[in-house]
Amino acid sequence: MEIIVDIVSGLIAQMQKPTLAFLIGGMALAAFGSKLEIPEPVYKFIVFLLLMKVGLGAGISIREANFIDLAIPAVGAALVGIAIVLLGSGTLARLRGVSSMDGMATAGLFGAVSASTLAAGMAMLDEEGIAYEGFIGALYPFMDIAALVTAILLARLSAERKAAAETTAQPGGAVAVGKPGSDNGEMIRGILSETFRSAAISALLLGLALGILARPDSVYENFYDVLFRGLLSILMLIMGMEAWSRLSELRQVAHAYIAYGLLAPLAHGALGFGAGLIVHQLTGFSGGGVVLLAVMAASSSDISGPPTLRGALPEANPSAYVGTSTGLGTPVAILSIPLWIALANMTIGV
Amino acid sequence: MEIIVDIVSGLIAQMQKPTLAFLIGGMALAAFGSKLEIPEPVYKFIVFLLLMKVGLGAGISIREANFIDLAIPAVGAALVGIAIVLLGSGTLARLRGVSSMDGMATAGLFGAVSASTLAAGMAMLDEEGIAYEGFIGALYPFMDIAALVTAILLARLSAERKAAAETTAQPGGAVAVGKPGSDNGEMIRGILSETFRSAAISALLLGLALGILARPDSVYENFYDVLFRGLLSILMLIMGMEAWSRLSELRQVAHAYIAYGLLAPLAHGALGFGAGLIVHQLTGFSGGGVVLLAVMAASSSDISGPPTLRGALPEANPSAYVGTSTGLGTPVAILSIPLWIALANMTIGV
Amino acid sequence: MEIIVDIVSGLIAQMQKPTLAFLIGGMALAAFGSKLEIPEPVYKFIVFLLLMKVGLGAGISIREANFIDLAIPAVGAALVGIAIVLLGSGTLARLRGVSSMDGMATAGLFGAVSASTLAAGMAMLDEEGIAYEGFIGALYPFMDIAALVTAILLARLSAERKAAAETTAQPGGAVAVGKPGSDNGEMIRGILSETFRSAAISALLLGLALGILARPDSVYENFYDVLFRGLLSILMLIMGMEAWSRLSELRQVAHAYIAYGLLAPLAHGALGFGAGLIVHQLTGFSGGGVVLLAVMAASSSDISGPPTLRGALPEANPSAYVGTSTGLGTPVAILSIPLWIALANMTIGV
Repeated sequence: MEIIVDIVSGLIAQMQKPTLAFLIGGMALAAFGSKLEIPEPVYKFIVFLLLMKVGLGAGISIREANFIDLAIPAVGAALVGIAIVLLGSGTLARLRGVSSMDGMATAGLFGAVSASTLAAGMAMLDEEGIAYEGFIGALYPFMDIAALVTAILLARLSAERKAAAETTAQPGGAVAVGKPGSDNGEMIRGILSETFRSAAISALLLGLALGILARPDSVYENFYDVLFRGLLSILMLIMGMEAWSRLSELRQVAHAYIAYGLLAPLAHGALGFGAGLIVHQLTGFSGGGVVLLAVMAASSSDISGPPTLRGALPEANPSAYVGTSTGLGTPVAILSIPLWIALANMTIGV
Repeated sequence: MEIIVDIVSGLIAQMQKPTLAFLIGGMALAAFGSKLEIPEPVYKFIVFLLLMKVGLGAGISIREANFIDLAIPAVGAALVGIAIVLLGSGTLARLRGVSSMDGMATAGLFGAVSASTLAAGMAMLDEEGIAYEGFIGALYPFMDIAALVTAILLARLSAERKAAAETTAQPGGAVAVGKPGSDNGEMIRGILSETFRSAAISALLLGLALGILARPDSVYENFYDVLFRGLLSILMLIMGMEAWSRLSELRQVAHAYIAYGLLAPLAHGALGFGAGLIVHQLTGFSGGGVVLLAVMAASSSDISGPPTLRGALPEANPSAYVGTSTGLGTPVAILSIPLWIALANMTIGV
Repeated sequence: MEIIVDIVSGLIAQMQKPTLAFLIGGMALAAFGSKLEIPEPVYKFIVFLLLMKVGLGAGISIREANFIDLAIPAVGAALVGIAIVLLGSGTLARLRGVSSMDGMATAGLFGAVSASTLAAGMAMLDEEGIAYEGFIGALYPFMDIAALVTAILLARLSAERKAAAETTAQPGGAVAVGKPGSDNGEMIRGILSETFRSAAISALLLGLALGILARPDSVYENFYDVLFRGLLSILMLIMGMEAWSRLSELRQVAHAYIAYGLLAPLAHGALGFGAGLIVHQLTGFSGGGVVLLAVMAASSSDISGPPTLRGALPEANPSAYVGTSTGLGTPVAILSIPLWIALANMTIGV
């Protein structure tokens, strides 16, 4: 009995932390039918500032980091991104009512990373006074790009196989419009270039490059870092409102998306947590770092992913993948951050 | 003679305080024909931040407040809001050239509260080092909603009576389109729901709820409170420019609006001040609190009120009520803040 | 050999300072094809905040400044603005492929001042710990307005002479539409009024007036000054992106513009530097002040100038003058700031 009281009071304490409280507040506002809106340009600017903060912070830390300490978690992050997409292709994309194209797009979005969720994880670790590697933001593009490229490749290959099968079945029919297998290299280059040029990844890489090559420490400490927590509170509010309003879109798609949106962040987070534990054994990666790898894995892309997928997989239905990701995946991922902190505390101590 | 010099130099010192100086600067810019513009999304975001600051601050204070200490000023605030509207219905709405509908809409707007004016009052008390109850922001919705509901109800009832009288006078004429008295309850529910969902009130209530239920203290102190004064200076600038450009609209409406716009804020402020003194006697309400109750009463709604009135009283002329409120009511209310401070100083000491 | 190493390492150290690093980062982003965008309303707001910072700071300093200490550099600034335009009318406007109207518009833009470049100069002096007069921002309008008025006047006079010549040459032709010489006074008044009302100049004058007449010191120190460096870093990023994307416009205009865009900032900076040295001899103007006079002279107007010129000289081609100024003039002016610092160090010590 006492344990239940402990868990409930622990849960309430977590919900009261600014990050989660603003997310829940945003959902409550939208449920209540509030007309409050944060203007789009302000939203975009807040996201830019958070990405610069994450990128600059990581870049500044990389200057003093050991190559191996950095390379091993980076490889781990990329592998987790690929594993999440393969998992999605073996589950969601095979369920009833889910087209292979839509399923792969959704899996790609869930494998990609949300900067806001990562920032929320950092803020919650800061609130708890738990340390983590400064370079952690640099792992973001590894997981993000690995997942997007894998998902788009698999979806394209499956579309080609299908088109080839149809051509074979109807020998007198039209010639398949699927691209020949030979230009896969070109397709990968296209996806990579599209992803690197996306607003989110390029802001993050800019921050990283400036942090590594220039000396932005004073402006980082006196501006980007100072505004971080406050801007994140507003972003959480926006994401809560957005999540609630996207939920209605899910009524129009298969039930499988709802199950995936609720369970996948937990499964992916566990995958990221496991990878983090291995990196911890290999390099002494901190407990806070393990938590943030789990948070990145649990998160689904809300800024860079959707336009990349829309460009690469125009046949996929955005209501399915954006609705599942923004309406369910993101709030579940943010609300489960305390879980990874508790788990890290239980396993390796933080 | 010396007294006049004292008053004039006191007045100049007040005008030099940032809050008033930026308001006057904004009016000067507009009078000068400057093309300077603060983009609309930035304006909306600044208002949102100020409302969150006021709401969060009030919510955090309510946690430790005594119920009675809070309930008595809240009842006082609601009564002042109703009294202001009744006063307007007995004066402005009966003057020559003022339609009953327009008069009631204007009285409603003057009874409702301006978050920016309240924020200016708080900033000026802070500048003077005068203390006030932290929960004061929580009184805002009581006065605001009481005034808007009263004004809309009175205007609707008067329209019905008029329609009924016309139907009686022209027995063979068309049936009155006025709503039957029986659905007044529904009308009130509609007004309340409209008001609670408005951007301003819902942002304030969100801040209040987060302040009471969550623990946003750190983000409040390190972000919302830090940016408050600076953002307010920009808001005052915008309001000054807006006031000047609205003045021209008043040329097209009856002179009665000009007299009302100049005198009503002072009369309403005195009413709020009197209510504040009574609350001071009953609960030991601070002198700063009395000043802020007067400031709220003197203010007229610039954000939440106009759309609510436009929705509920589509027959009323926005040039009349918005012009009077934004062009005259708001600058007079802000410029008279030093008056209430001086009055509080003379009566109960602050 | 050692000297070259010294110069190169000094150059790299300068490039790593936040101000230049963000400018170069912005150019790299645009060259890379990034889709990152800072929304227009945010850009406008950042510029407004920087102008208010420069204006308020100057206004606060003017309160304690000696009239002569202020008047001599102001006269110097105005003369430099006029000299730059005369220089442009004797060089660029006579080159092959450059119409007299386009050449004068470009010279006017290069004589006018960029608030962002001036702010970058201030930030770089702050980074180096070099002192400068607080009132320096007050010199901006003197140089800016002198240059714009001179350029527009010369362009209009030249158009009139041309029209008169054509009328004489074709005695039976249409009457010249050029304005008669008698209303030059009116034209100057028109240009002055247009310039004073422009967003940039009126924001700067507002800041100046508030700084001189009011007491905004607390809000200046706790808001405008605190955010200055961080916002400037974002502005530099935007200017870098903008410069890169404007470069392509230059392909369509005469090569003379490219030479002018690259060399004029250095020549104009040297002119400003020389004027600064004279002021230094006369009034003890600081070394930092000399640097900032050079920076103002080297800069070309990016905010207030283009709309003023577009209004006054509708025949001139914006691709020529805006492309040259934003694509080449501004980045060259910002990148050459360290040069003026080194020069001041060598001549009078800073």
